[in-house]
Amino acid sequence: MIFHVRMDVDLPTDLDPQQRDEMVAREKRYSQELQRAGKWPHIWRIVGEYANYSIFDVESNDELHQILSGLPLFPYMVIEVTPLAKHPSDIRD
Amino acid sequence: MIFHVRMDVDLPTDLDPQQRDEMVAREKRYSQELQRAGKWPHIWRIVGEYANYSIFDVESNDELHQILSGLPLFPYMVIEVTPLAKHPSDIRD
Amino acid sequence: MIFHVRMDVDLPTDLDPQQRDEMVAREKRYSQELQRAGKWPHIWRIVGEYANYSIFDVESNDELHQILSGLPLFPYMVIEVTPLAKHPSDIRD
Amino acid sequence: MIFHVRMDVDLPTDLDPQQRDEMVAREKRYSQELQRAGKWPHIWRIVGEYANYSIFDVESNDELHQILSGLPLFPYMVIEVTPLAKHPSDIRD
Amino acid sequence: MIFHVRMDVDLPTDLDPQQRDEMVAREKRYSQELQRAGKWPHIWRIVGEYANYSIFDVESNDELHQILSGLPLFPYMVIEVTPLAKHPSDIRD
Amino acid sequence: MIFHVRMDVDLPTDLDPQQRDEMVAREKRYSQELQRAGKWPHIWRIVGEYANYSIFDVESNDELHQILSGLPLFPYMVIEVTPLAKHPSDIRD
Amino acid sequence: MIFHVRMDVDLPTDLDPQQRDEMVAREKRYSQELQRAGKWPHIWRIVGEYANYSIFDVESNDELHQILSGLPLFPYMVIEVTPLAKHPSDIRD
Amino acid sequence: MIFHVRMDVDLPTDLDPQQRDEMVAREKRYSQELQRAGKWPHIWRIVGEYANYSIFDVESNDELHQILSGLPLFPYMVIEVTPLAKHPSDIRD
Amino acid sequence: MIFHVRMDVDLPTDLDPQQRDEMVAREKRYSQELQRAGKWPHIWRIVGEYANYSIFDVESNDELHQILSGLPLFPYMVIEVTPLAKHPSDIRD
Amino acid sequence: MIFHVRMDVDLPTDLDPQQRDEMVAREKRYSQELQRAGKWPHIWRIVGEYANYSIFDVESNDELHQILSGLPLFPYMVIEVTPLAKHPSDIRD
Repeated sequence: MIFHVRMDVDLPTDLDPQQRDEMVAREKRYSQELQRAGKWPHIWRIVGEYANYSIFDVESNDELHQILSGLPLFPYMVIEVTPLAKHPSDIRD
Repeated sequence: MIFHVRMDVDLPTDLDPQQRDEMVAREKRYSQELQRAGKWPHIWRIVGEYANYSIFDVESNDELHQILSGLPLFPYMVIEVTPLAKHPSDIRD
Repeated sequence: MIFHVRMDVDLPTDLDPQQRDEMVAREKRYSQELQRAGKWPHIWRIVGEYANYSIFDVESNDELHQILSGLPLFPYMVIEVTPLAKHPSDIRD
Repeated sequence: MIFHVRMDVDLPTDLDPQQRDEMVAREKRYSQELQRAGKWPHIWRIVGEYANYSIFDVESNDELHQILSGLPLFPYMVIEVTPLAKHPSDIRD
Repeated sequence: MIFHVRMDVDLPTDLDPQQRDEMVAREKRYSQELQRAGKWPHIWRIVGEYANYSIFDVESNDELHQILSGLPLFPYMVIEVTPLAKHPSDIRD
Repeated sequence: MIFHVRMDVDLPTDLDPQQRDEMVAREKRYSQELQRAGKWPHIWRIVGEYANYSIFDVESNDELHQILSGLPLFPYMVIEVTPLAKHPSDIRD
Repeated sequence: MIFHVRMDVDLPTDLDPQQRDEMVAREKRYSQELQRAGKWPHIWRIVGEYANYSIFDVESNDELHQILSGLPLFPYMVIEVTPLAKHPSDIRD
Repeated sequence: MIFHVRMDVDLPTDLDPQQRDEMVAREKRYSQELQRAGKWPHIWRIVGEYANYSIFDVESNDELHQILSGLPLFPYMVIEVTPLAKHPSDIRD
Repeated sequence: MIFHVRMDVDLPTDLDPQQRDEMVAREKRYSQELQRAGKWPHIWRIVGEYANYSIFDVESNDELHQILSGLPLFPYMVIEVTPLAKHPSDIRD
Repeated sequence: MIFHVRMDVDLPTDLDPQQRDEMVAREKRYSQELQRAGKWPHIWRIVGEYANYSIFDVESNDELHQILSGLPLFPYMVIEVTPLAKHPSDIRD
């Protein structure tokens, strides 16, 4: 099942730089494992913002919440999830 | 270049049914030609709404506006465009 | 899978009363069939508004969109869907 | 009487982890006692958010406020209450 | 139980004047009967707007919805209901 | 003259508990004196929120501002004032 | 007593031009009588909009509502009223 | 003096096509005369919308309002004006 | 040229009281000098809020920005500027 | 390709003044280099706000994001990007 997700990150500007770098690195590894597993097929940066639009392909709402709430940056994010369905004009089966 | 587009359609409820069907059929053909040409790689229905999230891959802002303003349903749509960039966590080249 | 849905109905005040009654009656039958099938386990009226909060239990996003877009009052509704997951404090298995 | 409640939790990211765990554990016990007493028949996690939609079944507005303002996480929550009525399409008596 | 209600009226400007006067007169009688019955203890005009703030004192959410949805101007109104509880600083018993 | 006032209180969660209790106690005395003087005829708690709807009966805008800006919790409040007029359906003289 | 008022006018584009001119002319006379009487000391056009910011100086909320609801264009307006008090930095007595 | 202006056009979908074309053509001539006169130095289409961002260079607020309210499409537009000042980082004198 | 300005002040509640008093006193002197110079002809307190509506009469957008950004409380303010024009119903020349 | 960008800056009021001055100076140099390179053809101050409207002329969305995320004040900014196209009324080729 396909979901559209917008994530906005708001890291405190006085965060310890090393702690910040480690969190961002962990976030990257976490995301890339899910991309390789086919669960997170798309991630795009929104131009000019510390934010992304992503597409997730998961078995259930519960799996999606488990993935999102496990993001290393989850406590610093605002996340908005929109369920998607097949569009009647979509040329793919 | 990649753009994220949300389209909300609001057809008048008293529209002539035949006119409506013809417009929607033209919209579908228009969309599918652009999908086949690689300009409109993704279109998803937003669950419960007469709306879609789409991804466009075009040469320029002008080309994108030409495509969107040429949509048969354009006079009945609210469209919101967001430019996208490559995300540093994206595993694709 | 569980979804939270808010539906706001806006019928034109100059709608033919008989047409209105027939549509509302069809909406009621449609809803009750889905309630009996277990797909629409809860529907509550929002006090003071021509609107409801509902809970749907469906197999997929696509099934939910098929149900919602088939509502007889769909052209007169604004619908907002929120995917739900099991809450860690929920006492039910 | 039935009420729809949305709760959004915003815990400071620099909260002492032990204090945080204790508060969340107290919140869970508090919620589960009310669930067992039939006052809080439904609680669902909103996917991707530290938030829930809940249904309360109480005797009065005053009882509901007493319950909500007694939540251990109340000082960190934004809560929105909507009174519900029986829907004319509801198949239950 | 006490509820705070805001009602915004939006009558079409091309409504037949006689029909409008009759509806407004029926609305007034309906409101005054409920005021005399103690169900609608306060109604105030919001300065500069075709709107009011009202206080209702009813037995249940269902009774309130029955009252509000029976307003002769209900199809032309936007209504927002907020449940109220006793304030700890209130000097009345 | 009658005014509708909404007050939302937002006390910092790390406020010294004794300071907090003293401020809240002063707020209560301040409110009750004005209630007894007939200046603040109604105060209701909004269910689920640290907020109230109040009705003030004062001689002038200036008097109302003097009262509101003198609230012990004023620096922690968001206040919204709406002037009210007699409603043509009001049964009281 | 001083009030700040914003008025937004939305005349239907298919209004009969003569009817429109007469209404606008009546609005102008109505406004100018109140300006001469000192009740409406300021009126400014908001640049680029069919809207104004105005200052009213009246005896009471009821008088203000009577004035505003009597505007010939009232049925086509959205009006927002804000009560004003003397500012402590104001150099006028 | 420099002003930033956003114009959103909303033409009724049932407008007579010839009337529409004539209005749009008049709008274009009106805009181009002002561009040539240096009053309207920039106009850009917002991608995907029947809207533009424009920059005006005028003598006064009154002149700007005269220009904007004289637009042939003015009755069908929502216009928002923002006054601009020289930015301290601007490299132009 | 006339401008409408709304200023909302948000001073941190933990600001040193002496520093606060000095800033507010400087703000007052700054405002009163501009009032005496005719640049700031009106300032009104918004009832119940730490905010004001003001009218400025300046030579240019640049002069207005210089005045506003020089306010001693500028770093603690949200300011919104609206350009005004002469209203056709205004009785003053 | 042309983009419209709004930047709102929110520097903490307790920032070390020297650190603040250095950051603002670096921001200025960064902006002026891009202006001289033709990438940032316009920057205007929004009157009364610590904000600007800017026009960028870049090769791609990716280049724009690289420029914006490299701004020395980026961690303290809210940025909103709107893609622009040639307007049919624009007199320039």
